[in-house]
Amino acid sequence: MRDQLRPSVRAMSGYTPGEQPRGGDIVKLNTNENPYPPSPRVLDALRDALTGDRLRKYPDPLGTAFRQVAGRVLGVDPDAVLIGNGSDDVLTILTRAFVPEGGLVASPTPSYLLYRTLAEIQGAAFRTVPYLPDWSLPERWPLPDAHLTFVANPNSPSGTVLPPGQLERLRGQLRGPLVVDEAYVDFAEDDALELVRHGVPGVVVTRTLSKSYCLAGVRFGFAVAEPALVRELVKVKDSYNCDVLSLAAAAAALDDQEYLRRTRSKVLATRARLEKALAELGFAVTPSRANFVWCRHERPVQPVYEELKRRNILVRYMRYEGYGDGLRISVGGDGEIDRLLEELKALV
Amino acid sequence: MRDQLRPSVRAMSGYTPGEQPRGGDIVKLNTNENPYPPSPRVLDALRDALTGDRLRKYPDPLGTAFRQVAGRVLGVDPDAVLIGNGSDDVLTILTRAFVPEGGLVASPTPSYLLYRTLAEIQGAAFRTVPYLPDWSLPERWPLPDAHLTFVANPNSPSGTVLPPGQLERLRGQLRGPLVVDEAYVDFAEDDALELVRHGVPGVVVTRTLSKSYCLAGVRFGFAVAEPALVRELVKVKDSYNCDVLSLAAAAAALDDQEYLRRTRSKVLATRARLEKALAELGFAVTPSRANFVWCRHERPVQPVYEELKRRNILVRYMRYEGYGDGLRISVGGDGEIDRLLEELKALV
Repeated sequence: MRDQLRPSVRAMSGYTPGEQPRGGDIVKLNTNENPYPPSPRVLDALRDALTGDRLRKYPDPLGTAFRQVAGRVLGVDPDAVLIGNGSDDVLTILTRAFVPEGGLVASPTPSYLLYRTLAEIQGAAFRTVPYLPDWSLPERWPLPDAHLTFVANPNSPSGTVLPPGQLERLRGQLRGPLVVDEAYVDFAEDDALELVRHGVPGVVVTRTLSKSYCLAGVRFGFAVAEPALVRELVKVKDSYNCDVLSLAAAAAALDDQEYLRRTRSKVLATRARLEKALAELGFAVTPSRANFVWCRHERPVQPVYEELKRRNILVRYMRYEGYGDGLRISVGGDGEIDRLLEELKALV
Repeated sequence: MRDQLRPSVRAMSGYTPGEQPRGGDIVKLNTNENPYPPSPRVLDALRDALTGDRLRKYPDPLGTAFRQVAGRVLGVDPDAVLIGNGSDDVLTILTRAFVPEGGLVASPTPSYLLYRTLAEIQGAAFRTVPYLPDWSLPERWPLPDAHLTFVANPNSPSGTVLPPGQLERLRGQLRGPLVVDEAYVDFAEDDALELVRHGVPGVVVTRTLSKSYCLAGVRFGFAVAEPALVRELVKVKDSYNCDVLSLAAAAAALDDQEYLRRTRSKVLATRARLEKALAELGFAVTPSRANFVWCRHERPVQPVYEELKRRNILVRYMRYEGYGDGLRISVGGDGEIDRLLEELKALV
């Protein structure tokens, strides 16, 4: 049956998610999970969703209750919100909606590797534009004809941000939509929602509850875009792409902004400490606006990654063609970061 | 931005799921939910999954624990199991893997309307082959070149089944894979898993936990196919398409086969009673092997559907081109069916 697969699918290698080891005494700093538990209100909402007949009945296909919370908290029209089974689902929906077979998907590089996979599944070409050395974009974007352009902001692995003005300028040069992937935005200062609020056409902002809301296990993300576009995207998503539990958890999480602020400030304090310590150890550290730190070294860092792994500390080793390699280290809990730094001191 | 959408997406109307009203005293017999709660072991597993750090960490991308339970319970290789966010997700993955833009998707008709939507999103043609009057397939299948052929078995809306031999004969005539959508199979006698077990090439069986396992709210489905194909399909699915809660619920549900047997026999007893009563009311009832009953009348049944809805009883009104209309009535709890029959007696 393999020979009946679409050639683009057969040829691709697929996206490799970060390792997800089970059990054991592992310091897991490789997939940017939040070291803190979700808000207690999330647990209450989940326990409540286990009662009554909610498990046996289909969820609300549009996630109306979540959309209302999101509209209120983010200051947008609830009809501008598209729910997704993680923001990867939202990125998939956008790709299927806009990119034809043989089309073109573009993104700056180095960035989130899934964008290439999404293009490949769709049978489309994927082209990248190198970030300038200061992690800004070239003033004249060389791929204006892409059917879809993804910009992770804050970017992974760098943790850097582009200001909204630079995104708006990029958008002005594009024929197709600009997807601003704000998976890490709650750890930054600015966001691009104002572009959607002000009606800049063709801007789609995507968010996830995996990182800042401590809910990677629950799979919930969403997009914010003009309501006319959201109505079209609803046709492309699976009818019931979000379940009753993730919908309940997501609404409760987003509604607890005070908990977000507290968790965020703890993560930011640890991030500052991690950045400083890594620099002292001789790493070139990019100042981060996300919940991870990107660091490089004059020597290749793969041996460091491997030695840490042997010592039960997982970080993400990343290598990009034409750019080189580095370590992306999630901002874990303070004890986890202490253990990492201790091992690193012995290693470098 | 709407004009930047792929023409196939812009042109399509999208799949319309059954109405999901919230609250109120509504007898909901329109989307084939199970009237009974899930196994108590599912609730235990879900409560357990709320503890520890599972919510904040990513799930296992492959669902290893679920696959092992499925392998054991169904007598298949765990590597033959592909996890999905509902079986709609699995059907989507299959379509994206096998159907190119401009390709062809085929299915008998009347059947599950989502197959057309999946083809349309992919920019592919969708063609149907009418069931024979006894709900069997023509001996010579006229669309051997389809990139993907979907057969719902038991079929919706008819509730009828094709024996495995007939499916194998169909498969033998096809160039592309045959997807046997067994969403309702636990209410029937036979299934097509033996075709996969015996290595009949190009057969993919899909299942859901929404109906027989009373978990429509949780979104979990899976496919069973040869492991070499499953490895390819994994490249197409979202990395984390199933969350920690649905994975825990699904493994516990599948593991409790005794609960399934008890629930099933209650549903089957109610189904027999419903079929008999509908026939006595003058409906033409197709003997069902699913958890719903398809009934037609010499007169159009839309007014009956509408009158029932006014009385807070939701059934599914369906109309197929070249075929006519009918009501698809889910096998609800005994009290719900009593109320339906009472109202119907007054109506017809």
